[in-house]
Amino acid sequence: MSETTTVPAGPLVLDLHRGGKLAVRSRVDLSDQAVLSQAYTPGVADVSLLLHDRPELVYEYTWKSSSVAVVTDGTAVLGLGDIGPVAALPVMEGKCALFAHFAGLNAVPICLDTTDADQIVETVTRIAPAFGAINLEDISAPRCFDIEKRVDSAIDIPVFHDDQHGTAIVVTAALMSAARLLERDLRDLRVVIQGAGAAGVAIVDALLDLHVRDITVLDRHGVLAPERDDIDGEKRRLATITNGRRMRGTLEDALVGADVFVGVSGGRVPHAWIDHMRKPAVVLALANPHPEVDPDAVSSIAAIVGTGRSDRPNQVNNVLAFPGVIAGALAARATTITPQMRRAAAIAIADVAQHGLAPDHIVPPVSDSRVSPAVAAAVAEAWTGSSTISSLATVDPLTGGTHEYRG
Amino acid sequence: MSETTTVPAGPLVLDLHRGGKLAVRSRVDLSDQAVLSQAYTPGVADVSLLLHDRPELVYEYTWKSSSVAVVTDGTAVLGLGDIGPVAALPVMEGKCALFAHFAGLNAVPICLDTTDADQIVETVTRIAPAFGAINLEDISAPRCFDIEKRVDSAIDIPVFHDDQHGTAIVVTAALMSAARLLERDLRDLRVVIQGAGAAGVAIVDALLDLHVRDITVLDRHGVLAPERDDIDGEKRRLATITNGRRMRGTLEDALVGADVFVGVSGGRVPHAWIDHMRKPAVVLALANPHPEVDPDAVSSIAAIVGTGRSDRPNQVNNVLAFPGVIAGALAARATTITPQMRRAAAIAIADVAQHGLAPDHIVPPVSDSRVSPAVAAAVAEAWTGSSTISSLATVDPLTGGTHEYRG
Repeated sequence: MSETTTVPAGPLVLDLHRGGKLAVRSRVDLSDQAVLSQAYTPGVADVSLLLHDRPELVYEYTWKSSSVAVVTDGTAVLGLGDIGPVAALPVMEGKCALFAHFAGLNAVPICLDTTDADQIVETVTRIAPAFGAINLEDISAPRCFDIEKRVDSAIDIPVFHDDQHGTAIVVTAALMSAARLLERDLRDLRVVIQGAGAAGVAIVDALLDLHVRDITVLDRHGVLAPERDDIDGEKRRLATITNGRRMRGTLEDALVGADVFVGVSGGRVPHAWIDHMRKPAVVLALANPHPEVDPDAVSSIAAIVGTGRSDRPNQVNNVLAFPGVIAGALAARATTITPQMRRAAAIAIADVAQHGLAPDHIVPPVSDSRVSPAVAAAVAEAWTGSSTISSLATVDPLTGGTHEYRG
Repeated sequence: MSETTTVPAGPLVLDLHRGGKLAVRSRVDLSDQAVLSQAYTPGVADVSLLLHDRPELVYEYTWKSSSVAVVTDGTAVLGLGDIGPVAALPVMEGKCALFAHFAGLNAVPICLDTTDADQIVETVTRIAPAFGAINLEDISAPRCFDIEKRVDSAIDIPVFHDDQHGTAIVVTAALMSAARLLERDLRDLRVVIQGAGAAGVAIVDALLDLHVRDITVLDRHGVLAPERDDIDGEKRRLATITNGRRMRGTLEDALVGADVFVGVSGGRVPHAWIDHMRKPAVVLALANPHPEVDPDAVSSIAAIVGTGRSDRPNQVNNVLAFPGVIAGALAARATTITPQMRRAAAIAIADVAQHGLAPDHIVPPVSDSRVSPAVAAAVAEAWTGSSTISSLATVDPLTGGTHEYRG
């Protein structure tokens, strides 16, 4: 549990949540008797028979082309930890509302009454037919790694674990912008990542995919190194593919001479340690709601500071990534989400931030409505491997019109 | 497969279905930065913590008070049979759209990639936390009986298998009206039911609950009787609780002297057999889209004729029941749906039909917007056992206002 446990829910927040944050509506006018008899029996029978003969048309004549299941087991909700599926529901509804708002997608919260990995994989596989994509959410590490891989290989629709890849995409975008701003080659930056959970692991993979060579990762016991006998699974894998200088020690040790600090595990980092970094330093202190450093105070030491907070500049927030990633994957009818698609998403976000690039503008604000369409177009293009995606469009479920992602 | 296999989907119907029939929208304005930070992180964390402490408040601060999972395995879709979960999706979307239109509920299609009863029970149980009710749909008999019972006992939210109970409620309402019109006591009517599947079984139970004494049920091999060695499960149960006159034989035999014929299995019934019924006869020929009798031709023989067709008077359609039943169960926070609640729903539908009661008006038209609120109020009242239900209201997910179900 984070420190938010001490904050009682205010009346404004409670009022906003009363009755829930989502509405499912009919897109057709059922008060018209003719429409009713087409949308339901008898007319709908013809559509079902058509899909029985040609199942691929499910993307044309149902919401599958725009529907997303947002699935959690409630084990790692925000910074709150294992609060269970019921308490997780407001967060999932919020996520679904963001999918609707930023990408016009139809997202549905699925809160699972199980934390068993086999059962989660099984359940998601069984409910997949009505959905075009699966967004796994707030499932604790290290279970999430295995669950994501197994669900992805079990079904032929895209699967995205946002806590891993959404975070990694936006962090990567922020570091691309920072490198550009500091006139450094991203690949040459020495990066220290505090946290080897869902986000930390995915950030490492994303940076390695971009050929960043010098990455050091720490968990709460110190630098991940092959010699450590207290790590296994993904941490052991990270220990073998990072830490080229074979260092041991604490975060204080690791930060000496580093260019970039990425905090994705909470806790506090003394500003004196940040001062040991090479100047100009980049600090992404992403713990929510309390960043690992005081962003105001640390700004005299670090050249660029990003946090997860909505009341600060450089908000490194997954919402810059996930609506567009899923929308792009759906538009391209991708069957999975590849590293290339995630990289394309990061590049697209950094590209939008290019206009007005500055130390306090390395990522676009979350309210920037250009981001999701740009990400969607880039992700779709990365899947199709083609630069001509003029046919890529998804039906806007609200208006019945189409979003064109480019053109 | 029914004869609808011969009808190709017309362009109008296809056009209506393009992109699907449902939209999930945010009920809060996420373009407002303050709202965004309340609806999602950091504000939402406080709501999650509150629900962690007081899980019962999930009905206040999430959509659980108005959300329904419409679950199918695609094995008995309309009259089309086992067409699978993908081809079933347009029907489930239609059902969800009806829930939204008639009761303001938030219904979500869940199409299961399994037909195994254990797996269906397991899966529905696991996804229950985010939903306020479960509507089982188009699951074939006899599996549906066991599945409904097991799901209902596994979870503490209401479970409703519409193909059973929705049909039974509306048939019961129609027969209440018919009895009233013919000045007969419903309990004295001699009822013949062709079809011992989901609907037939539930109709028998509903009529027995109302003390209808003389019920004869037939499957395709004839009258259900204890002596038959080719029946088990629900059919065997029906054989022991119906057919008090211990008859054997065919539908033609059973109809001699009967007051009511209810067809819920398709096929054709010669009008000469209907002519053997006691006059004035009541015929509910509910096969869709082709009733067991020609309603026009048979009207010279039967006093009252109902069908499932939207282009005929007396449309005995489940949509008169299911939106209100679920809305009422949700409003009352019922943990299950009892026979009393189903009976109350039937009475409420018949009551609405009272105004203007006539041989061609024994049930209200499906477009009658008074029906769902009346059914909801009656169902909620039946659960609470109280006549003062002024506090019963559900938040309208579309407007944020409330539906009062009475007053």
